[in-house]
Amino acid sequence: MHAITIPEPGGPEALVWDEVPDPVPGEGEVLVEVVAGAVNRADILQRQGFYDPPPGASPYPGLECSGRIAALGPGVSGWAVGDEVAALLAGGGYAEKVAVPAGQLLPVPEGVDLAQAAALPEVVCTVWSNVFMVAHLNPGETLLVHGGSSGIGTMAIQLAKAVGAKVAVTAGTKEKLERCAELGADILINYREQDFVAEVKEATGGAGADVILDNMGAKYLDRNIQALAVNGRLAIIGMQGGAKAELNIGTLLSKRAAVSATSLRARPLDEKAAIVAAVREHVWPLLAAGHVRPVVDRALPMPEAAQAHRVVEESGHIGKVLLLTP
Amino acid sequence: MHAITIPEPGGPEALVWDEVPDPVPGEGEVLVEVVAGAVNRADILQRQGFYDPPPGASPYPGLECSGRIAALGPGVSGWAVGDEVAALLAGGGYAEKVAVPAGQLLPVPEGVDLAQAAALPEVVCTVWSNVFMVAHLNPGETLLVHGGSSGIGTMAIQLAKAVGAKVAVTAGTKEKLERCAELGADILINYREQDFVAEVKEATGGAGADVILDNMGAKYLDRNIQALAVNGRLAIIGMQGGAKAELNIGTLLSKRAAVSATSLRARPLDEKAAIVAAVREHVWPLLAAGHVRPVVDRALPMPEAAQAHRVVEESGHIGKVLLLTP
Repeated sequence: MHAITIPEPGGPEALVWDEVPDPVPGEGEVLVEVVAGAVNRADILQRQGFYDPPPGASPYPGLECSGRIAALGPGVSGWAVGDEVAALLAGGGYAEKVAVPAGQLLPVPEGVDLAQAAALPEVVCTVWSNVFMVAHLNPGETLLVHGGSSGIGTMAIQLAKAVGAKVAVTAGTKEKLERCAELGADILINYREQDFVAEVKEATGGAGADVILDNMGAKYLDRNIQALAVNGRLAIIGMQGGAKAELNIGTLLSKRAAVSATSLRARPLDEKAAIVAAVREHVWPLLAAGHVRPVVDRALPMPEAAQAHRVVEESGHIGKVLLLTP
Repeated sequence: MHAITIPEPGGPEALVWDEVPDPVPGEGEVLVEVVAGAVNRADILQRQGFYDPPPGASPYPGLECSGRIAALGPGVSGWAVGDEVAALLAGGGYAEKVAVPAGQLLPVPEGVDLAQAAALPEVVCTVWSNVFMVAHLNPGETLLVHGGSSGIGTMAIQLAKAVGAKVAVTAGTKEKLERCAELGADILINYREQDFVAEVKEATGGAGADVILDNMGAKYLDRNIQALAVNGRLAIIGMQGGAKAELNIGTLLSKRAAVSATSLRARPLDEKAAIVAAVREHVWPLLAAGHVRPVVDRALPMPEAAQAHRVVEESGHIGKVLLLTP
């Protein structure tokens, strides 16, 4: 088969479409013939040499895909060759074939195109596990999403609105904020021109956000704590603004608030399977009913992954960028 | 009635036993004739002028007491004059009488002396709400308790053992650690001589603590995060070591860990009532069965509250220090 390989870490040009050996599905795994992969920021870190795949994972980038089951490994039940699936991966989605633990497979939701389904696994599993399983967003509460027009952001808006929460978003352009509003966002904050702490407080009668989904890490830590409501929960899923910052424990304590930080890729198989099962139970019906949709910015041929990375690095996209196998 | 008043903030001598007006129970409150109050570190901060009572609370110190119901305010049901009770207070426990919202009353558990019951409300509600309701300690997990011989510590050890967890404690003397061991602690760490991160890791096969109950705040933040296991939860309930410290979000994220901080006193009535109800359901049967006991260091006459504060400030105690009304 062919896959995007990274002979040497570097810029987008480090991504090379090359011939490689086919993966072989192990115990409890299936082999998926990939129709589409999707780009995540983690792929860029991996390309740059800052985020090695976890032990046992494919060496190729790509944390999600959609496609058809081509073979079943030993001990797999409930799935058949030819099934159309979306899959959460520890790597290897930028390839024509990938071996996946069966617990990380999802059926393609009714009404969603097979290629577009590649836009779902990472964002849905990340948002559901953080905003709902860890931070327990409740109906009527306010969620603040940083980077509202990103893949994660566009899904977080839709899922929070679907459960009856109020949604505030930050983004860097008017166009991006308009797209967030179309998806249901109630409070639109241009972080280049506005102070998100003041805006969120004003829009919530001084209360602040009950849950914040953050991809900035250190740079926003103190302001996120300031923007939290009493009993608020800050869920950090990225460190685009650095890894170390001063925590004001006094403010945290006076608000009875909590800070969590997670990543999906490093979780053991049983935790990933539990998240995928929860997503299938709670989110898949929302997709089938059309209340939640994958948001796709564009689809490029997989051999042109370098161009896809340039788009994401420049934040020129809204939603997900897909990579279609030739 | 008489109460301990604080005419001017200061050292222990600032506490003055004086005649003051009787409190009047309002809507949904009862009047308790106090048999015993108990000392908490928050009382010392209040005496020093650093921790004013929340709006509407008694101006006198004292966050818990035991005694007998002397009168019912309007709208109280389920309690009768003469009932022996323990009570969680927003203030006013250092007094002969105190008005308490009915949702913060607990019956004196079977087999517990009425005065000793004053040792229970703060520590049981603090430990239960943090270790179990927020941090969800599970059977088989490891809890690290800083200050294992304190009132909070001695209760945390017993409750964690009662649900089948493993318990590590830190304390500053051999005698204190021995008392922790008698209460069930499995891993004993003298923080003056040992590195708690290394000791907890060694005793858990490198895994670390699943839950940490911390009263030090800033001083221990980084080491607590280091000592956490994957999926670990750090619950901060005090800032004896300062309020601001650098948080390593990268470590937190790689462990999928969480930091929470709470206090009990500032919670609204409905949250306090929910905690008290959970404590009555889950902890009171353990007390009635003798699996968990109040740990009382000594009982002093309430007019000698200054001496009680000196004992607690010097950390010369193990468990709780009670104040008996004359």
